Amino acid sequence: MSNPSLLILPGDGIGPEVMAEVRKIIDWFGAKRDLQFDVSEDLVGGAAYDKHGTPLHDDTMAKAQEVDAVLLGAVGGPKYDNLDFSVKPERGLLRLRKEMDLYANLRPAQCFDALADFSSLKKDVVAGLDIMIVRELTSGIYFGEPRGIFEEGNERVGINTQRYTESEIDRVARSAFELAMRRGKKVCSMEKANVMESGILWREVVTEVGKDYPEVELSHMYADAGAMQLCRWPKQFDVIVTDNLFGDLLSDAAAMLTGSLGMLPSASLGAPMENGRPKALYEPVHGSAPDIAGQGKANPIACILSFAMALRYSFDQGAEADRLEQAVETVLAEGKRTADLLGDEGATPVSTAEMGDAIVAAL
Amino acid sequence: MSNPSLLILPGDGIGPEVMAEVRKIIDWFGAKRDLQFDVSEDLVGGAAYDKHGTPLHDDTMAKAQEVDAVLLGAVGGPKYDNLDFSVKPERGLLRLRKEMDLYANLRPAQCFDALADFSSLKKDVVAGLDIMIVRELTSGIYFGEPRGIFEEGNERVGINTQRYTESEIDRVARSAFELAMRRGKKVCSMEKANVMESGILWREVVTEVGKDYPEVELSHMYADAGAMQLCRWPKQFDVIVTDNLFGDLLSDAAAMLTGSLGMLPSASLGAPMENGRPKALYEPVHGSAPDIAGQGKANPIACILSFAMALRYSFDQGAEADRLEQAVETVLAEGKRTADLLGDEGATPVSTAEMGDAIVAAL
Ligand SMILES: CC(C)[C@H](C(=O)O)[C@@H](O)C(=O)O
Ligand SMILES: CC(C)[C@H](C(=O)O)[C@@H](O)C(=O)O
Repeated sequence: MSNPSLLILPGDGIGPEVMAEVRKIIDWFGAKRDLQFDVSEDLVGGAAYDKHGTPLHDDTMAKAQEVDAVLLGAVGGPKYDNLDFSVKPERGLLRLRKEMDLYANLRPAQCFDALADFSSLKKDVVAGLDIMIVRELTSGIYFGEPRGIFEEGNERVGINTQRYTESEIDRVARSAFELAMRRGKKVCSMEKANVMESGILWREVVTEVGKDYPEVELSHMYADAGAMQLCRWPKQFDVIVTDNLFGDLLSDAAAMLTGSLGMLPSASLGAPMENGRPKALYEPVHGSAPDIAGQGKANPIACILSFAMALRYSFDQGAEADRLEQAVETVLAEGKRTADLLGDEGATPVSTAEMGDAIVAAL
Repeated sequence: MSNPSLLILPGDGIGPEVMAEVRKIIDWFGAKRDLQFDVSEDLVGGAAYDKHGTPLHDDTMAKAQEVDAVLLGAVGGPKYDNLDFSVKPERGLLRLRKEMDLYANLRPAQCFDALADFSSLKKDVVAGLDIMIVRELTSGIYFGEPRGIFEEGNERVGINTQRYTESEIDRVARSAFELAMRRGKKVCSMEKANVMESGILWREVVTEVGKDYPEVELSHMYADAGAMQLCRWPKQFDVIVTDNLFGDLLSDAAAMLTGSLGMLPSASLGAPMENGRPKALYEPVHGSAPDIAGQGKANPIACILSFAMALRYSFDQGAEADRLEQAVETVLAEGKRTADLLGDEGATPVSTAEMGDAIVAAL
């Protein structure tokens, strides 16, 4: 049997630096655990634009469709701010999500014990926090038509369309309920059914899907109230399921609340391929952080933990994923900290590469 | 000259209770400061639906158009959850906003010194916080067409439309810059210009308006990063300007962060009327809280401070508004607390009515 294949897309900003550390981890699993991957690497985002004039080359897109999993660093940067909308770095990432049909974006918001002090929230509010936000990723206002800037009378109008079909809501709701079954058996669905018809349909379909999961406790919350409750007492949640745009804001807010932003991975999953594995893309929740790129300050943990998610969700290597997550905890417990996490007494400052090495050593 | 006119719409849930306390304050200003208002009262939301089968009767709408200011309590409640979308309590409020053309929703997120401990955030993150969110209130996805639930093939699709014209963005941006000139001279505009064309137009127009205010420092942030930064270090902001839907989430999150949710007022302002006053509706940020309605537990301060905003923005009585805000501070400093704020050592629990009386006494 051939090795599982992995396409690495480091992207922009700190993407390449953090990805270099993931390569060390991948190598370790190959050498020590006999877990070999066929790794290829390519460009995405601004890096792809610089070379090809497009944020995602068709060849790269084709490769992504063929591999067992894609691992992405980050895209974007001020250098590309004035590019035309159609070739902005973000379009590369959005094309991957859309064409691979990665409809379920899993964003854990977890607070690492060693880092609870880093949150702007009080320690008792976040210590031990472990929630999962399931964000719909291939539809809604990100992709709906009509869209654009049009002339109307003697002025312009900017238009985007929120659009959800029953089947789009159904499948992401199922992902959320399946996850909840393996976790705390609670799902909270968030929309604005009080002002948006798409929210009414969302609530209806999620309720319908919920009937197939009688063990799971389902609740509904307006997204504004959801934002409030995430800030007030996030531990009330287990799994949150929401649409593409609400998910963008709510998952970022939740990630920041944990104080562990540089630590948080994500998985974007689609339908099963012929080999039974889901189409999958893994990426850190943090962005390309152009202000610190190239300085050895970036925290590689979010990207490393994204690889752990790949081990778990794509390669059925839950035990190896646990091993990797454990190694990260060990290194943190030793007090090793990249620049984003400095401030603790007794912490040992380490560079991006030193953090990667320390995690390999802990493995 | 006739007295300025005020239409009071208590609405649902705790609305009537908190409004009863505002009436005491209004009476005090009439008796002691010779500030008389022609006050009328009417129904909105579920209360209007119960009587008229519509959440806002046409006569009430007509009255709202004629008065100098509207003061609203809150709308909505589980009793009305299964009503048809077109007659939900929220539609009454949305109709008022739309037909009065109240495009600038001012939502201060302020942390009251006496209450900094109530925040889920660390004290140094929120103590002294004073930011102003200016939310566009009459357009965007709340009102854009097409909208609805439609048949498509053999399933249904839920559709809403985000839609902003240049002039709609221009006028709300001007409100934000005008406010910033009287505050910290900083405006941060939030959208998702990286994924939405309506966000691109938003950024362009706000930038253009900014040129008329060279003293104001203008920055732009993607709304997801904005949600993060509000959670991380809200004091970096002075005035935030954003669209209807982002404003809904971001202002609620910001309000919750302050720990002072039951304390926060809002003003929704439109164009100047013939008498020079802006069309205006004032309402607390909190909702109808049906779970505690009728129990004397509600905090009337947000609604009372909404009346203070009316004094300032509609009636040109800035000094009297200061006096009222000062009275609220005094009562808090004395340790008087409604049920939502209990927990401090040495706090004196008071009912809704006792809080109103205490504020009158402090005036
Ligand atoms: C980079 C950007 C297009 C993206 C999004 O808006 O989805 C990012 O914010 C995210 O959350 O993954
Ligand atoms: C009650 C509801 C329609 C309203 C909104 O979504 O605008 C509320 O959440 C608000 O923020 O004033």
